[in-house]
Amino acid sequence: MKIIPGGICAVKGVMAAGSCVDEYGVAIILSPESNASAVFTSNKIIAAPLIVSQESLQDGKLSAIVANSGNANCFTGEEGLKDARLMIRTVSENLDLNPDDVAVASTGIIGRKLPMDTITPLINCALNKLENSFKASKNAAEAIMTTDTVPKEFAVEIELKTGEKVRIGGITKGSGMIAPNMGTLLSFITTDVKASPQELKTALKEAVDNTLNLVVIDGDISTNDTVILMANGRSGRIDENFQEALEYVCSNLARMIAKDGEGATKLMEVEVKGAKTFHDAKKAAKSIVTSPLFKSALFGSDPNWGRIMAAVGYSGAEIDEKLITVTLESEDKQIEIVETGVVKAFEGSEELEVAEKIMKQNEIKIIVDLSLGKFKATAYGCDLSYEYVRINAEYSS
Amino acid sequence: MKIIPGGICAVKGVMAAGSCVDEYGVAIILSPESNASAVFTSNKIIAAPLIVSQESLQDGKLSAIVANSGNANCFTGEEGLKDARLMIRTVSENLDLNPDDVAVASTGIIGRKLPMDTITPLINCALNKLENSFKASKNAAEAIMTTDTVPKEFAVEIELKTGEKVRIGGITKGSGMIAPNMGTLLSFITTDVKASPQELKTALKEAVDNTLNLVVIDGDISTNDTVILMANGRSGRIDENFQEALEYVCSNLARMIAKDGEGATKLMEVEVKGAKTFHDAKKAAKSIVTSPLFKSALFGSDPNWGRIMAAVGYSGAEIDEKLITVTLESEDKQIEIVETGVVKAFEGSEELEVAEKIMKQNEIKIIVDLSLGKFKATAYGCDLSYEYVRINAEYSS
Repeated sequence: MKIIPGGICAVKGVMAAGSCVDEYGVAIILSPESNASAVFTSNKIIAAPLIVSQESLQDGKLSAIVANSGNANCFTGEEGLKDARLMIRTVSENLDLNPDDVAVASTGIIGRKLPMDTITPLINCALNKLENSFKASKNAAEAIMTTDTVPKEFAVEIELKTGEKVRIGGITKGSGMIAPNMGTLLSFITTDVKASPQELKTALKEAVDNTLNLVVIDGDISTNDTVILMANGRSGRIDENFQEALEYVCSNLARMIAKDGEGATKLMEVEVKGAKTFHDAKKAAKSIVTSPLFKSALFGSDPNWGRIMAAVGYSGAEIDEKLITVTLESEDKQIEIVETGVVKAFEGSEELEVAEKIMKQNEIKIIVDLSLGKFKATAYGCDLSYEYVRINAEYSS
Repeated sequence: MKIIPGGICAVKGVMAAGSCVDEYGVAIILSPESNASAVFTSNKIIAAPLIVSQESLQDGKLSAIVANSGNANCFTGEEGLKDARLMIRTVSENLDLNPDDVAVASTGIIGRKLPMDTITPLINCALNKLENSFKASKNAAEAIMTTDTVPKEFAVEIELKTGEKVRIGGITKGSGMIAPNMGTLLSFITTDVKASPQELKTALKEAVDNTLNLVVIDGDISTNDTVILMANGRSGRIDENFQEALEYVCSNLARMIAKDGEGATKLMEVEVKGAKTFHDAKKAAKSIVTSPLFKSALFGSDPNWGRIMAAVGYSGAEIDEKLITVTLESEDKQIEIVETGVVKAFEGSEELEVAEKIMKQNEIKIIVDLSLGKFKATAYGCDLSYEYVRINAEYSS
């Protein structure tokens, strides 16, 4: 697996563009006649673009995606649906596509009408800039940012078992908020693999379940979360190597989102292994990255194993506290702070000293071995800082 | 229902005492030959005193409770169980009770051995001060505090259907943390009602489910949560009036805990009504008081209905967004900000102006009407402040 530059445009036949003005941005991704699949938010309140995109995706085919930042087009009633369809039509007419082959996504303020007099010109501007280039992918990644501080893209080239080379590229945005609103995860992934819509659906669902669904910034679930995978079929047939690479791409996008979480000063990667079921591993890992108490401890560089254990205890996963081992890891250090249920990082111990040094780093891995089975999962999160509270308490009226 | 002073000592035949030194405290409650029932944490990692108390409570009878603050006696292995039993024995020998008639509870640091050379003298000191007085109840409430800023007690007198007068008194502590540790909820409730252990169990479970289980400070579930109800049977038989009063006492204790949550500057009471099931009402109410985004908005006095709606949407409760009405209420004001799915508190509206005034108060009620059924539930929470982050990020090594 080779990491390559270019994001979504690393894939041949894919064009992209992004245009921004003030707090608004529009990204367009063109991958003609692709098979496609998507995963949407589990929130029961669903924004207009998600409803419209679900219609477009019914036949498992897409040629383009148009996405805007600055306004979530959520809680906007019939007008919101009309606006989402208008965004699609502006793209489909210009590119001579069937409207059913275009998906739409939005992120930003909830409950306000989309300012179409700003969005439509941005779409037209982006349409004029469509190209296959590193710069175009980056522009698209920038156009979907809200309170993200950096654009996020990632791409790999892999060899299928047949020896054919396949590329997968992705752009994403993380959790940011614009009052009165909440964060939204948008990820768009392109590839030249050959696969049916059903195969893509299975592949994407598994990859997202194991990666992007295990990113927690604050535990709030957006009304607009959207992940779309488009495959233009120019290379070889989907196989296990592709699945592995897709998960790798998604996990890297997940890491980028966690690292750039609202107010985040530190990235935490929590690997729970030795779980009796995969579901247990996910529950326990997600419980730790969600815990406000442990997130606060991370901010304070406190190797607070008590909060890790407690979060595992209430996660719902099957555990035996006497078997649990907890290891902290940073780039150049590793230390067991709890070993088969016995605390090693007690006051005055060398273990505590090393643990404190690890907790001061910017990227920290926490490995929890439940020693009950063979399943594992990795969740991604960040610390809870004063800055998170400030960003979300300030009322930008 | 009459609110009366005296906390647990408002009930005839109950004696209490509290002693403190440094960060440690011991409370003793004596209610001889009472029927009793308890509710413990749902965390799978359970502290030693909870295991020992479950043994004591097996026959549904208790005469005394001994509780300490400063150390949770959790994750302390066989030694922890021995120490919890020693606490019980110190009390039972002095008061000439069967050890099986004494329960024990702890709150404080996780993973450190109980300092019995401090705890035992505190127990002896408290034993010498046992009495039925307002002061004794308050001392007991103070002795179980950790980062709580005020002692918490509440009592009522009610009339049973038979006309007999019954009293219910309670003391509680809320969520505070002492590094490396997490918050713990302890509530001890006394009454002179006549009831079998099974009747008390049913009554307590229902009351706690509807009140104390709906308090959320940060979503972390302690390893030590304990609620014990002792009934000495000196008055009339348990009936519906008692049940109502017990819930009233528990909901007042719940309010006190939420108001004194770590770093809290504001109390929020969220009533979800019109739910299809009681379970739905609870899920939706709990989701709002738990949302870090809405908690941050509360801190910033931002009437962020988008976050309320989103939290309802991902709560798992059955909803129809077109039917939802959201009302904000403070002591002297009330305003609908969303009416049957339509936002009224848009920018520049009078509704938004009133909503902003309400959000600046110290006690805010949020009423969400799902308009789908007849069930309702109330959850209690507080805002997410810089102070919460500071308290939990600071490593007190």
